Amino acid sequence: MCRIAAYHGPAIPLENIIVRPRHSLLSQSQHATEAKLAVNGDGFGIAWYAPHSAEPGLYRDVLPAWSDGNLPSLCRMITAPLFLAHVRASTIGETSRANCHPFTFQGWSFCHNGQIAAFPALRRRMEAALPDAHYAARRGTTDSEMLFLTLMARGFADAPAATLRSVLTEFAPESDAAPNRVTCVMSDGQSLLAFRHASDGKAPTLYLSGTLDNGGRAFASEPLDGESNRWTAVPLDTLVVLRDGQVAEYPLLAQAA
Amino acid sequence: MCRIAAYHGPAIPLENIIVRPRHSLLSQSQHATEAKLAVNGDGFGIAWYAPHSAEPGLYRDVLPAWSDGNLPSLCRMITAPLFLAHVRASTIGETSRANCHPFTFQGWSFCHNGQIAAFPALRRRMEAALPDAHYAARRGTTDSEMLFLTLMARGFADAPAATLRSVLTEFAPESDAAPNRVTCVMSDGQSLLAFRHASDGKAPTLYLSGTLDNGGRAFASEPLDGESNRWTAVPLDTLVVLRDGQVAEYPLLAQAA
Amino acid sequence: MCRIAAYHGPAIPLENIIVRPRHSLLSQSQHATEAKLAVNGDGFGIAWYAPHSAEPGLYRDVLPAWSDGNLPSLCRMITAPLFLAHVRASTIGETSRANCHPFTFQGWSFCHNGQIAAFPALRRRMEAALPDAHYAARRGTTDSEMLFLTLMARGFADAPAATLRSVLTEFAPESDAAPNRVTCVMSDGQSLLAFRHASDGKAPTLYLSGTLDNGGRAFASEPLDGESNRWTAVPLDTLVVLRDGQVAEYPLLAQAA
Amino acid sequence: MCRIAAYHGPAIPLENIIVRPRHSLLSQSQHATEAKLAVNGDGFGIAWYAPHSAEPGLYRDVLPAWSDGNLPSLCRMITAPLFLAHVRASTIGETSRANCHPFTFQGWSFCHNGQIAAFPALRRRMEAALPDAHYAARRGTTDSEMLFLTLMARGFADAPAATLRSVLTEFAPESDAAPNRVTCVMSDGQSLLAFRHASDGKAPTLYLSGTLDNGGRAFASEPLDGESNRWTAVPLDTLVVLRDGQVAEYPLLAQAA
Repeated sequence: MCRIAAYHGPAIPLENIIVRPRHSLLSQSQHATEAKLAVNGDGFGIAWYAPHSAEPGLYRDVLPAWSDGNLPSLCRMITAPLFLAHVRASTIGETSRANCHPFTFQGWSFCHNGQIAAFPALRRRMEAALPDAHYAARRGTTDSEMLFLTLMARGFADAPAATLRSVLTEFAPESDAAPNRVTCVMSDGQSLLAFRHASDGKAPTLYLSGTLDNGGRAFASEPLDGESNRWTAVPLDTLVVLRDGQVAEYPLLAQAA
Repeated sequence: MCRIAAYHGPAIPLENIIVRPRHSLLSQSQHATEAKLAVNGDGFGIAWYAPHSAEPGLYRDVLPAWSDGNLPSLCRMITAPLFLAHVRASTIGETSRANCHPFTFQGWSFCHNGQIAAFPALRRRMEAALPDAHYAARRGTTDSEMLFLTLMARGFADAPAATLRSVLTEFAPESDAAPNRVTCVMSDGQSLLAFRHASDGKAPTLYLSGTLDNGGRAFASEPLDGESNRWTAVPLDTLVVLRDGQVAEYPLLAQAA
Repeated sequence: MCRIAAYHGPAIPLENIIVRPRHSLLSQSQHATEAKLAVNGDGFGIAWYAPHSAEPGLYRDVLPAWSDGNLPSLCRMITAPLFLAHVRASTIGETSRANCHPFTFQGWSFCHNGQIAAFPALRRRMEAALPDAHYAARRGTTDSEMLFLTLMARGFADAPAATLRSVLTEFAPESDAAPNRVTCVMSDGQSLLAFRHASDGKAPTLYLSGTLDNGGRAFASEPLDGESNRWTAVPLDTLVVLRDGQVAEYPLLAQAA
Repeated sequence: MCRIAAYHGPAIPLENIIVRPRHSLLSQSQHATEAKLAVNGDGFGIAWYAPHSAEPGLYRDVLPAWSDGNLPSLCRMITAPLFLAHVRASTIGETSRANCHPFTFQGWSFCHNGQIAAFPALRRRMEAALPDAHYAARRGTTDSEMLFLTLMARGFADAPAATLRSVLTEFAPESDAAPNRVTCVMSDGQSLLAFRHASDGKAPTLYLSGTLDNGGRAFASEPLDGESNRWTAVPLDTLVVLRDGQVAEYPLLAQAA
């Protein structure tokens, strides 16, 4: 599994989410409490947006987040109104920068926690289905990057809920013996989009904060302050979109009934 | 470009080829004299064979060879009768361990110096043509790894010269404007195989030593001792096989005439 | 804390101790059961001896042992009659290769698990007391490396038990509030030497195996096979020397009574 | 040797100095033209100041600057009114993050190009002379870090020219056979300070730009645009201080006459 944290609101130093809270993402990299594995030491990454650039900044490395001497300095210095961060516990794909989240493509960024169970069998089909531009953008070997590029290729930017529904249905597993579990946080630089889906109903946790002291809001795999009173669980099979402090929810699978 | 060195003969410490000669591979990583680029600092790798294992050992890293504090110690301690080493100057594919040579597959190891010019356009076709086992073994994004897996998939182990001829012909470029240049050293654990091919005749250099003091022989992109009197250039379009001190040559393109 | 494993006996692949046992050192890097911290992800290292060299080989890196793609290959290929390995959970000193154990000096190698509580205050005094050769050999910032160089400087090679007793006494803490805890395994290339000492009696664990199937014996922070029936705890304040299958014990503090 | 670039003026993306100029610091890492070595591949670092923090940000790594996939992204995203960057070609001290420039201490940052010839002999004396706070801040093994901490300890912040003169005199070499060569750029977050000194008169190059298009000015080991018409050489033995577009010069050795 992995742990994710993301923020949208007035610009703040990245450390306010990633380093300083009592149960920050950095703390969760060593002591996650709601994950199968307590340790997320197989690399980390941060994507952040700045007014002067449509492309997000990207900083990823294979060290555990707690080992990287550069990370605290970068998180203290860089301020941003919108960012995503990820600490990795690898399931599919070796420990390399190209396999660290977030992944980015044409202004989008993407973090994933979970797995597509049948990926080894699906990989060739998914890869062959990618348009050339998306195919050329593939750098690593993970199911996560492939899911992201597939969503992008299928029109997620224009119709996120419908694309998500269609892709999740297409790659649904045959049985619950090897379930798909997909908890994601994404951004296009304007909003944060999050969803949880699992073919067996057991998607990795994700919480949405209430309005923080500075007016922003955050998503996190585990509430950042160690208490859950201001945090609410992201519901299953619902695309949650956070923009300028407003939250909109789009059920993913209602139409499937 | 890159630089290659390989050895077959009585077991010696790897350092006797990689570190200690006046113009060793380590020296060539900083001061190559017969390459377009003098510096080969985009990672390095070593594959070596031992009696107790059919699979070669593999040590690769993204640091320049001259920066890695572990390399001198490993080269001093490990002795082997057969090994290949490579220092990289990247042309295609970012600096990552998965893009560092040698590549290995089912007991084979492979080093490449050069480029397949049309690789960005050929990549999808080459990837789609790989059998599942070879496809699943792909880890990086280089033309070199793809060429190696393609040779393996096409039967190089059983018919090296014919397979080489067929693959080089199939992926020949349309014009000399973007030529293929392919200088390779490979091993199956029993022998060293080397060849130089270029669609415009300008393949990267490769030399074969005479019998060294200890009875072994070596291939190297540039003669290791800084003198060329005991070293002879590997001829173009010829598969050279070194086994137990004996050298056999197989013309690649004679039949094409 | 950290975890240590070491072996002396007929030459075996390093993986037989470090990778393959059910509760191998690699397994202990993620799931230690007798340490304050279950995870030892702040770098690792191996020192090993070969007949052709008095200086041990040394391989260290800052990645967690479980993340390093080179480690399994090296452990599978390298065989040695005598080796020490260490996975680190840092207490003093940042994550850098120079702070990873084992440390080596003039043919000796050294692994430490524990801490010298007053090191920040003692550091200048210990450093100033080192002879020039030992001072020049210092590379990192840990109490462990300093303890090793101090032992070497004080004559450990000639009188290990007496030197150990003298150094431990000299740097004994003033109170149990900040205790010294020192569990070490060392080698001069001929034997393995181990000891456990703690000013409050709570030294990190260390076990000595019985005779293994192949005739060798091992030290390990936690029994390697997940059972303790063939393993016995190294007693406190006793220098245990393993050489050619024979074990000798030298009480450290008897004379102090 | 090494290469340095630094900027002070209206806030700009770091890439405007480090990446984008025709002869940028990144370009100089591979193709320096005024240094003994063309390649500076033994690590790199950046220190930059932001209005919300007195401590500079610090990003250093052991990879060559041209190999680090994170560097272009960080340089594109981070904007700063004051920053220093360095690419290293090591002379003293192994390749480790702790040996990469810039070094920082209490709000100051420091880059050095050159060497203190007698450092191996001087090291103990310099280390012993450091106050505790400066001693505790030492992380690596270079002459550069030691020179920086010594300058800080001797009162550089209050009297830069006098301190510099005194320290350079104290550690002057006995003969020109092993000369001291010291070209430095430093900052306290308010201004850039630069000087060149060599006991044999052959200090590494350093240039000061004229007013750039955006109103700022830069120091660089080699003019960034490949032309020297707007750049002037920093004179020997002169402390040059750049603040808010104004340049002040303080001769270092006049009093020595």
